[in-house]
Amino acid sequence: MHAVIMAGGRGSRFWPKSREKLPKHLLDLFGGRTIVQETVARVLPLVPPEKILIVTGESHAGALIRQLPELPRENILIEPAGRNTAPCIGWAAMEIARRDPGEVMLVLPSDQIILDAERFRSVLAAAADAAATGDVLVTIGIQPTGPETGYGYLECGEKAFDARGEEVFRVASIREKPDRATACEFLARGGFLWNSGMFVWRAGSILRAIGRWMPDLNDGLGRIAALPASAPSREEFRRIYEQLPAVSIDYGVMEKAGNVLVLRGDFGWSDVGSWDALWEISEKDACGNAASCRLVEVDAANVLVHGAKKLVALVGVKDLIVVETEDALLICRRGASQDVKKAVVEIERRGWKELL
Amino acid sequence: MHAVIMAGGRGSRFWPKSREKLPKHLLDLFGGRTIVQETVARVLPLVPPEKILIVTGESHAGALIRQLPELPRENILIEPAGRNTAPCIGWAAMEIARRDPGEVMLVLPSDQIILDAERFRSVLAAAADAAATGDVLVTIGIQPTGPETGYGYLECGEKAFDARGEEVFRVASIREKPDRATACEFLARGGFLWNSGMFVWRAGSILRAIGRWMPDLNDGLGRIAALPASAPSREEFRRIYEQLPAVSIDYGVMEKAGNVLVLRGDFGWSDVGSWDALWEISEKDACGNAASCRLVEVDAANVLVHGAKKLVALVGVKDLIVVETEDALLICRRGASQDVKKAVVEIERRGWKELL
Repeated sequence: MHAVIMAGGRGSRFWPKSREKLPKHLLDLFGGRTIVQETVARVLPLVPPEKILIVTGESHAGALIRQLPELPRENILIEPAGRNTAPCIGWAAMEIARRDPGEVMLVLPSDQIILDAERFRSVLAAAADAAATGDVLVTIGIQPTGPETGYGYLECGEKAFDARGEEVFRVASIREKPDRATACEFLARGGFLWNSGMFVWRAGSILRAIGRWMPDLNDGLGRIAALPASAPSREEFRRIYEQLPAVSIDYGVMEKAGNVLVLRGDFGWSDVGSWDALWEISEKDACGNAASCRLVEVDAANVLVHGAKKLVALVGVKDLIVVETEDALLICRRGASQDVKKAVVEIERRGWKELL
Repeated sequence: MHAVIMAGGRGSRFWPKSREKLPKHLLDLFGGRTIVQETVARVLPLVPPEKILIVTGESHAGALIRQLPELPRENILIEPAGRNTAPCIGWAAMEIARRDPGEVMLVLPSDQIILDAERFRSVLAAAADAAATGDVLVTIGIQPTGPETGYGYLECGEKAFDARGEEVFRVASIREKPDRATACEFLARGGFLWNSGMFVWRAGSILRAIGRWMPDLNDGLGRIAALPASAPSREEFRRIYEQLPAVSIDYGVMEKAGNVLVLRGDFGWSDVGSWDALWEISEKDACGNAASCRLVEVDAANVLVHGAKKLVALVGVKDLIVVETEDALLICRRGASQDVKKAVVEIERRGWKELL
């Protein structure tokens, strides 16, 4: 079994900690290992290092290689340009299929938080068994905790079979990120799961699906496969890659395919998409404040303080996110952290490149 | 004419910028001269340096001497203990009366902000003329801008006379810090001014008033006057000073005396008693934000950012006070800055002495 870890994100939502050169998955948000290091460590008991591929962009490859010395250098696949998930997955599948088209591959985002790694591996191992049963595309669905509009939703159909004691369901339909009313309706009806972005399939299965539903991508991948394995072909590779359709695998394949299965990922999952999400999963004191520095609280509640090395005193404030780095200080209302991206845009507009 | 500048304050309300060793008047809150330097510069056109006395405590004397090299060393009067304003003023008056009991002395707090220094000097010169007319105690009153409960109130009586074109009124009564309802009543009735803590009188006049209304202080000052001018007497001085009654000149003398006059101090006055007051008098942008660092605002209003050297991004926040120093970061709700003192108490309780 192979694992493909997609590490292409920029993560400006975690500014000022995340930067152009340091996206979310390369950060140590919890003061220990970085998120991508956690992700690799989590699959190592399932997949040996030589079968773990990481797909990333040119600007982050150096940092990734430094953070993951246990992986063979040739397992870091460097995209000449970010083209969303379908080209990334297709390229990795092609690399794996070159060795064995029947090989099962796990596709994992690099930047998710999993609380129960043991349970995670049990579900993924079951999903791999399910994927090995035939020409199917297996996804991991997450029980929704609220009417989130930032995720796709998987509608569960009938149960297909059990794998290693885990129930495997057919997916009746996949709904793109819904509006709030629709998300509420999904929750009221029941039987909907969030699309976690984790997939399991045989390399040959996803390539066949791409061949059927994304002919442009299929053609591009074919041209890449035909390139000679010599250095000058890098420029040709770049030209082809930059023109691959920038489409997500969800939209390009999963929503159209009829052979999609799902397992429930009940292992404590968060995609930690914002500072607000980090507050949610952080350990908090009795007043809801979370900090790793010395903290003095006077009538303060529900504040996340991240990255500060000095003493922080909170007086009469609530629902704040405070992030300090060497060169920047963010003060954000809790619930408004999606707007941190707007601050990054403003910094870009003013030309303060060193802060991006 | 002499000037006595009272520089005994601790100023924990300006933590983390103010510290035990660095009270408010020694701070450069506006990025230029410190507040006590401004205070001295403001009176220099009226009073030559050799006639400016500063009364301060032992822990701040060194910093004061460094900040005010233009003053003779012997003009820095060092109190062995802070005993409120009456002993401080009495001691200074005695030092001046030794030279000439008829000499007029200005008594000025070290930590006030005056916007119009020219007008300040005109009013003080008129007050000095008024003080020279006889055995009177002259105060400067400030037109109230709201029902503040942190100030004493002077009730104006009939006009006494003009001095240098300024109206001088008798003071009908002095009311200690009132509750809010009483303060509102004062404002509704009119004719009340805030007690600014600035006084003008002949050295002999205030000493006579102390003799009449504060016999204990008078006795203590007499014992100090009788000390020989030799080094071993410093310990004896300390013993006497530490037992002087710790009473304000307002409570000890002004409220009882019948010969109090007042001039209106219409020169733009603030005692800058808290971070909130600093926001009030700071230059603000169109959204009410005040900062001296690079600032990025996304839906942010009425925020004071003080001391930060890095870029600060405000996202979705309003009514905050943010103060950064080398070793501490304060985040305070605007309107709650009186509670900064509570944070200092908490730091003390935890024994983090280096942060006090």
